[in-house]
Amino acid sequence: MADIIEENVGGILAEILDDYEKDRAIDKADIYSQPDKAEVITILENLFSIVYPGFYRDKTYKIYDVRHTVSMLIEDVLFHLNKQIRLAMLYTEGCGEDELDSCAQEKSVQFMRTIPKVREYLDADLQAAYDGDPAAKSKDEIVFSYPGIYAITVFRLAHELFLLDVPLIPRMMTEYAHNKTGIDIHPGATIGKYFFIDHGTGIVIGETTEIGDNVKLYQGVTLGALSTRGGQDLRSKKRHPTIGDNVTIYSGASILGGDTVIEEGVTIGGNAFITSSIRRGTKVSVRSQELIFKNDDETIGRQEIDEPWFYVI
Amino acid sequence: MADIIEENVGGILAEILDDYEKDRAIDKADIYSQPDKAEVITILENLFSIVYPGFYRDKTYKIYDVRHTVSMLIEDVLFHLNKQIRLAMLYTEGCGEDELDSCAQEKSVQFMRTIPKVREYLDADLQAAYDGDPAAKSKDEIVFSYPGIYAITVFRLAHELFLLDVPLIPRMMTEYAHNKTGIDIHPGATIGKYFFIDHGTGIVIGETTEIGDNVKLYQGVTLGALSTRGGQDLRSKKRHPTIGDNVTIYSGASILGGDTVIEEGVTIGGNAFITSSIRRGTKVSVRSQELIFKNDDETIGRQEIDEPWFYVI
Amino acid sequence: MADIIEENVGGILAEILDDYEKDRAIDKADIYSQPDKAEVITILENLFSIVYPGFYRDKTYKIYDVRHTVSMLIEDVLFHLNKQIRLAMLYTEGCGEDELDSCAQEKSVQFMRTIPKVREYLDADLQAAYDGDPAAKSKDEIVFSYPGIYAITVFRLAHELFLLDVPLIPRMMTEYAHNKTGIDIHPGATIGKYFFIDHGTGIVIGETTEIGDNVKLYQGVTLGALSTRGGQDLRSKKRHPTIGDNVTIYSGASILGGDTVIEEGVTIGGNAFITSSIRRGTKVSVRSQELIFKNDDETIGRQEIDEPWFYVI
Repeated sequence: MADIIEENVGGILAEILDDYEKDRAIDKADIYSQPDKAEVITILENLFSIVYPGFYRDKTYKIYDVRHTVSMLIEDVLFHLNKQIRLAMLYTEGCGEDELDSCAQEKSVQFMRTIPKVREYLDADLQAAYDGDPAAKSKDEIVFSYPGIYAITVFRLAHELFLLDVPLIPRMMTEYAHNKTGIDIHPGATIGKYFFIDHGTGIVIGETTEIGDNVKLYQGVTLGALSTRGGQDLRSKKRHPTIGDNVTIYSGASILGGDTVIEEGVTIGGNAFITSSIRRGTKVSVRSQELIFKNDDETIGRQEIDEPWFYVI
Repeated sequence: MADIIEENVGGILAEILDDYEKDRAIDKADIYSQPDKAEVITILENLFSIVYPGFYRDKTYKIYDVRHTVSMLIEDVLFHLNKQIRLAMLYTEGCGEDELDSCAQEKSVQFMRTIPKVREYLDADLQAAYDGDPAAKSKDEIVFSYPGIYAITVFRLAHELFLLDVPLIPRMMTEYAHNKTGIDIHPGATIGKYFFIDHGTGIVIGETTEIGDNVKLYQGVTLGALSTRGGQDLRSKKRHPTIGDNVTIYSGASILGGDTVIEEGVTIGGNAFITSSIRRGTKVSVRSQELIFKNDDETIGRQEIDEPWFYVI
Repeated sequence: MADIIEENVGGILAEILDDYEKDRAIDKADIYSQPDKAEVITILENLFSIVYPGFYRDKTYKIYDVRHTVSMLIEDVLFHLNKQIRLAMLYTEGCGEDELDSCAQEKSVQFMRTIPKVREYLDADLQAAYDGDPAAKSKDEIVFSYPGIYAITVFRLAHELFLLDVPLIPRMMTEYAHNKTGIDIHPGATIGKYFFIDHGTGIVIGETTEIGDNVKLYQGVTLGALSTRGGQDLRSKKRHPTIGDNVTIYSGASILGGDTVIEEGVTIGGNAFITSSIRRGTKVSVRSQELIFKNDDETIGRQEIDEPWFYVI
């Protein structure tokens, strides 16, 4: 390092250290009382190896007995997850201070016990993706490459931690999936069996959303809230819609509001904007746009097509 | 690990191992007959180093002769790609069982022979990005940072593997790009020269889409199919549109259906929803929304602007 | 490697090396005169550790004195950033050739001196995210997991380098954030205090955008330009809108054009498409779509709701 930098490094350091003394949220330096993002991601990756035993396993050496590998993975996840849950529990009143250790262990164990149930749901989700997408050549292709199944897997795992009142960690997990897939599912949402997300980029599913069985969502769908005025006062109120069984929602549609109920068997067309409830079996579509056609900057026609916007990719 | 976890780890393991015995798609544990995602990503990264020799090269040590580095990279890609293709070919009838080894090698070699052609296309794509974006300061900036050129590069490589009837791997590659860029191009699509994607987040290009030369797409464009009822029955039918040469499609537009042909020189305005063919040279735009203006909760006016929605970022 | 590959590897190598001789942009192999993407990402990660001292710190070993860690990090960033800036400066006339070393050092030092100011802005952004989102359980959760705060942090750092006329590196940084979050903010944009992005996927903020204090954007918002005809001729002209203080823009809205001014206190409803200026305090919304309801393929009703599309997630 040459002159200019050498001359200034001391000053820069002093300025930044001074800046840490301002006692703002951003100045928090209490490094031992927070869960660690990198650890949480490693735990998630190991959970994928447990949930999909044939797909995410280390292939560089021969495995003679699946039992050994899985038991190693399970011990590893339990050890590290327990450590992170313990740190996260400091954020709430969820565990008494004396019982922090046993409380975190209890939650870690309870979480791991949900894995067979989670796998049952994921097997159905896999089937839904295969049945719903003509471009899917095999179920293996879906596990290997579909962002929808990735995001749903992370959600289903994170949701179980959410139900155990573990703070921070569930959202760290689903936001990691959001980063990777563009699919933003809050871990607090409730989602039934045989759930299919196609393409997925831009999907948002809010915290208090409830979704039934056999629901299909396309890219850009928002299941959101209606008003923001309340801010933190709205916390934990039902703000997001309820979606019944056998509902399909095409791309770009928004369904908003805690009182909005989309009943069984409804189909919502692309780009529809729904803020009130829809009766069972109804097909809702947007009356088409009026298109203007020009040629050499003269208008040569207008067209208005009055047909449902149901489509897929 | 303290008591509660210790007491339960055996039970958890037993439950999960039992769960693997259910013989569902998710229980597949045949770890040696599947391609490996991490390997495929490493191959892709090495292909980037070959395709863009000056941009992705290891800069930590002096390279005296580009020939040595490239030959090393090529051998490495051939070795690992061949291994992955061999595993992937087990998913189809594409190679006879006796000829699996030579068949995989044949495909690996044929793929590598397409690289100069791929690079010719990519050089034109790079030019298109530079010509089309006033925010681009240099072509190097585009290679270094534009998600569009990244997604197109991965697509053009994956598409060559798709044409060689290699299963699984092409989609693993394009979904990796989808993860990184939010741009979802199926490896089966056909895309001409001088192709430009700006911003790109939310773009979806379906499997049977055909795109001509000099086509420009903005963020959120969907080139999709019209109906999903068929599910797996629709497999490999033409379901997605055909886009002619010199077409521009602005952000958020959807063009849907296997019979939909957008002819040469057409411009499609932002957010247009197109489900039938458009004649050459036409400019299609959406008649503007009616906007409502309020002040202190009284409506103070309405405005309807009847002009094309052509715009860029 | 067996026969077919062995026979062909020489030919493949020759073809690719020949292809490098074509002297196109893509053939550039001048490996020492370009900044390195991996280095820039490492610098960014270390900057996060400096900016958020308690959140991104290495937790694997005990840190006795925050001063030591931070001083190490600062020296590391200065050393590597200086190297990358020096390489990047070769792309412009910004530094005289004789003064390249001191010029790069000057910029590195000036950049590091902006960190306290950047942290002041980020602390306010953090407060804005907490105040604006009822799903946020704590500010720590926001730092750990919200893509909006991640993208804004990268933008605020990259913007300082942009103001110092450093080429390439700022865009490499913001495109890395775009990859991770789906939020595409050009480092040239100007953004005031207490800025909040919710969800974020699909947001695009163009190079010459100006944004005031206390502005809130939801997913899919585009702040863009109106016409592309000019291509590279439009470079560095004001092409993107100006957004005043206390403005909220709901999801999917597009605001376009360099002359478009959204004055103080305006609210723009979801999916609105705005190409002209809006007076202070106005609430703009889109007149609702006409929805068509069908049951067993008979139209059972139409509905047109004439109310503002203000909503959140």
